[in-house]
Amino acid sequence: MTELETVDSWKSHGGTQGVYRHASRETGTDMLFSVFVPDHEPGTTLPVLWYLSGLTCTHANVTEKGEFRAACAERGIIFVAPDTSPRGEGVPDDSAGEWDFGLGAGFYVDASERPFSDHYRMASYVADELPELVSEHFPVDPERQSICGHSMGGHGALVMGLRHPGRYRSVSAFAPIVNPSQVPWGKKAFALYLGPDKSVWRKHDAVALIEDGARLDELLVDIGTDDPFLEEQLTPGRLEQACREKDISLRLRRQQGYDHSYYFISTFMADHVHWHADRLVK
Amino acid sequence: MTELETVDSWKSHGGTQGVYRHASRETGTDMLFSVFVPDHEPGTTLPVLWYLSGLTCTHANVTEKGEFRAACAERGIIFVAPDTSPRGEGVPDDSAGEWDFGLGAGFYVDASERPFSDHYRMASYVADELPELVSEHFPVDPERQSICGHSMGGHGALVMGLRHPGRYRSVSAFAPIVNPSQVPWGKKAFALYLGPDKSVWRKHDAVALIEDGARLDELLVDIGTDDPFLEEQLTPGRLEQACREKDISLRLRRQQGYDHSYYFISTFMADHVHWHADRLVK
Repeated sequence: MTELETVDSWKSHGGTQGVYRHASRETGTDMLFSVFVPDHEPGTTLPVLWYLSGLTCTHANVTEKGEFRAACAERGIIFVAPDTSPRGEGVPDDSAGEWDFGLGAGFYVDASERPFSDHYRMASYVADELPELVSEHFPVDPERQSICGHSMGGHGALVMGLRHPGRYRSVSAFAPIVNPSQVPWGKKAFALYLGPDKSVWRKHDAVALIEDGARLDELLVDIGTDDPFLEEQLTPGRLEQACREKDISLRLRRQQGYDHSYYFISTFMADHVHWHADRLVK
Repeated sequence: MTELETVDSWKSHGGTQGVYRHASRETGTDMLFSVFVPDHEPGTTLPVLWYLSGLTCTHANVTEKGEFRAACAERGIIFVAPDTSPRGEGVPDDSAGEWDFGLGAGFYVDASERPFSDHYRMASYVADELPELVSEHFPVDPERQSICGHSMGGHGALVMGLRHPGRYRSVSAFAPIVNPSQVPWGKKAFALYLGPDKSVWRKHDAVALIEDGARLDELLVDIGTDDPFLEEQLTPGRLEQACREKDISLRLRRQQGYDHSYYFISTFMADHVHWHADRLVK
């Protein structure tokens, strides 16, 4: 069994909220993540909802501020929150030290470009390594997984769903970056992680993947009308257009007056958990 | 109108979560506090629930981690979280720099002893100054107030309720210090803030106040069985005994496996909000 260190553990909402550390083969670093396991009958397995966080975040932001536990406890869903990048000595960061690239900003891709390609392997980490580890150590039913995320993590959730057909029962997002290859955050990250070839970028871009034929049956997306990143970085209209053209059922809710913060996310988190639960729990 | 600066404001759970700063006449410092105002009909006033935080906390801990907004939005209750001490230049702290006294540890008393008496006036601040300010700036019905708190703030809530009969419709606490004059945290704080006269201490000690005849109709208290401070600092059995002797209806729930953290508080927060709401909202 792969080794897993329990960093912290608390009883909460009848279940166990834990923070764990392991040596990742993909990133070549120690990685932290959090897991909430609701109270359940011993010997049973539960569906799992993955949550991918946004720029600058670690597992801790959603774990502390996400308000997901009550709904997950009610519906019997395990909630897993990975980190957003490798961290630690030897992990290269953006030389300018900016917050939208490097540490806290792995963009859920496997970097092909030096010096990032050694450690920045968040696509394989989130899609393969961490699910295997979580299935070993927690009572997860691997046949019942769903995924959601926020901002950069919304991009991650959409792309994971589109790139791995059938793996996730449902996909949702809060204020996702839907078309990273066309917006400043994504262009900067993709150029440095993936190099100049734009045909590679399209494989990590939700709108481009949909345009190129990838499918999801349905999508739930919440986005605040007062989100400061709405027009420049998030561009929800492009997802709407791509879904319309490819006949993908998108429920895009423009939430009046909400911004990009966890005060927005936590407001609609229970909705998302219940929406996923309706698709995960029979 | 007393001046109030809006430091931050977010839409959340249909209402407005704000953080505010004002120059306090009681503490002689700038003070921060947070207020959640649910969506409501313009022109109407709402009941208010005060939340007093524990050692080391500011307004921010419960504001970010307390999971109170969904229930407050549902029941139409304003939620106010003050800071736990004066802060800033010129405010004396414990010379040893310990976390259980001084900054973040005002114990909701008006200090009589130098050098603390100038600024450490958290009893008058929470009981008088802040309610006046909040009533000026927010749609509060001052006839419908309740109070709760955690740990040192549970002590604060109990003592506020016992010292101001009729002011609060209901009083509850998470893991409160119930008998501060008999436990290490309280003995240290009371000696430095209030001086050596133990008869003064009794006026700021829930169990002593009840023994000396102060009354509340009923009390709701949750406490975790795995709280590391249970036996040495919190001593819930003493509150049970005092309430039994004075025929006060105490609902003390020993919550199996929970500790002292916000993972515990947030689990039972909605319960407390609804319990208060049943007494505040007709």
